[in-house]
Amino acid sequence: MRVDAPTRLDEAMTTIAEAIDRQFEQLLTSPDDLRTRLYAAMRHAAIGGGKRMRPLIVKASCDLFNVGFESALRTGLAVECIHVYSLIHDDLPAMDDDDLRRGKPTVHRAYDEATAILAGDCLHDLAFSVLVDERTHPDPFARCELIRALAQASGPMGMAGGQMMDLTAQTTPFDLPTVTRMQQLKTGALIAFSVEAGAILARVPEDRRVGLRGYARDVGLAFQIADDLLDVEGDAHVTGKAVGKDAAAGKATFVSLIGRDQAREQAELLVAQAKAHLHSFGSEADLLRDIADFTIRRTH
Amino acid sequence: MRVDAPTRLDEAMTTIAEAIDRQFEQLLTSPDDLRTRLYAAMRHAAIGGGKRMRPLIVKASCDLFNVGFESALRTGLAVECIHVYSLIHDDLPAMDDDDLRRGKPTVHRAYDEATAILAGDCLHDLAFSVLVDERTHPDPFARCELIRALAQASGPMGMAGGQMMDLTAQTTPFDLPTVTRMQQLKTGALIAFSVEAGAILARVPEDRRVGLRGYARDVGLAFQIADDLLDVEGDAHVTGKAVGKDAAAGKATFVSLIGRDQAREQAELLVAQAKAHLHSFGSEADLLRDIADFTIRRTH
Repeated sequence: MRVDAPTRLDEAMTTIAEAIDRQFEQLLTSPDDLRTRLYAAMRHAAIGGGKRMRPLIVKASCDLFNVGFESALRTGLAVECIHVYSLIHDDLPAMDDDDLRRGKPTVHRAYDEATAILAGDCLHDLAFSVLVDERTHPDPFARCELIRALAQASGPMGMAGGQMMDLTAQTTPFDLPTVTRMQQLKTGALIAFSVEAGAILARVPEDRRVGLRGYARDVGLAFQIADDLLDVEGDAHVTGKAVGKDAAAGKATFVSLIGRDQAREQAELLVAQAKAHLHSFGSEADLLRDIADFTIRRTH
Repeated sequence: MRVDAPTRLDEAMTTIAEAIDRQFEQLLTSPDDLRTRLYAAMRHAAIGGGKRMRPLIVKASCDLFNVGFESALRTGLAVECIHVYSLIHDDLPAMDDDDLRRGKPTVHRAYDEATAILAGDCLHDLAFSVLVDERTHPDPFARCELIRALAQASGPMGMAGGQMMDLTAQTTPFDLPTVTRMQQLKTGALIAFSVEAGAILARVPEDRRVGLRGYARDVGLAFQIADDLLDVEGDAHVTGKAVGKDAAAGKATFVSLIGRDQAREQAELLVAQAKAHLHSFGSEADLLRDIADFTIRRTH
């Protein structure tokens, strides 16, 4: 009986969220010149918001292989830089045109579009600056592996490619395999990077990563189905962003394609399956198990 | 007497331009799915245009230290990915709002704004994917050095930071030191990366890079002054982009601050100074010398 699960997850979330904020404070210290507005925009988007799910997953993955906290934290910071940059760009008028993010005005609303584009571009670079630093890992081979994986997960073969597919969803009727594929790229790729990060940092051979990849695939999809459910059932005050947007835009989602009840069932099945992929691990995988449970329990 | 200079430069330019196009053809092979529009937009921006000055500078820098052609080409490809992504984003309506680039419609005009933002973001990732690949350099330490330098040159401490300063130029009256600083970041940082790339690839120690940095600083500034002169004197049919935009926007430039004649003199002085920084090199630096001369001779 695991009665301590909620506490353990809550504690890990708080620790990571606070540490990521401190890291962003350092990373985004503004020079005293005409770039202060750029740094202010990056800080607005990056500091004090979000669940920091991806850095948390990196930390949980590092737990599996006894990777040190600084390596885990810096790798989590890099993936969060990518995540935040993508939110800034996705919120732009030409993309999803959102006014609200994490309960605050989006960057282009709080500042302006040009600043938002540049703030996203800069966080994009900072992700790689963080990874390439010796403090992330002493071995340049491991740093190269991280950079290779993150560049792939965020570019046209990952997140940005998925966002492009999503943009066509308003004009092309999506079926279930297409929605699944789009989500695997758009949100799944960065989650998969986060799950694998511990194995990369520990230089674990490929054949010992198979279970982790299964876990990542299932949790990523469960996370997205839960997101679709929140978009239908959520409260903007709790989620901190606009809700009901997918339906209004006529976009196919898991929920619109298979209905709420089946979507919820499917997400639960995926979570059970994700945890089954961790069978070869002992208590060192408990945080990953808690995270799997959390994906469908969260309210925002 | 160096009578062969123009031919040598022309030949090198053609070789590099053709090789970069072939590399882009391979890198941007489109998957057969909903991302074809994204790849088409990247190809529109990346293939068959531009002088490929930065890859050419990388090649010239590699000549100094006998770095192989594939390493030089792939490093040049990476810096060109960054350059092209920055052109796509800078041309957006929220930024410089340009309709024409390299004689073709800009990406957001040929496609749409959302696609342009994502195409830029993807080329941004591809730059790092290219650098991190073993084919760029067998030693992961050298690859990390390249990635560190390129991320710094393109982010808030380099190109994107300079673009942010440039955005404030319409509302803030710039003096000469501010214009110089802005240009050092906006265009100088990527040129400096390109000049140093050969030394990084050859693992040349820091103390042997001083002259190269002097060369980079002077050539970068000369290049920008020449650009400002072209904006005043150029012909849109030859330059392939809109001209007279800086003056129309009331932006301070080298030309508006010190006048055409003095700007031209200053650029010539910088080119002579740049070449003087190469005094310790023999004929292996001839291409870098030709490039310095070319910065102020070019018509587009």
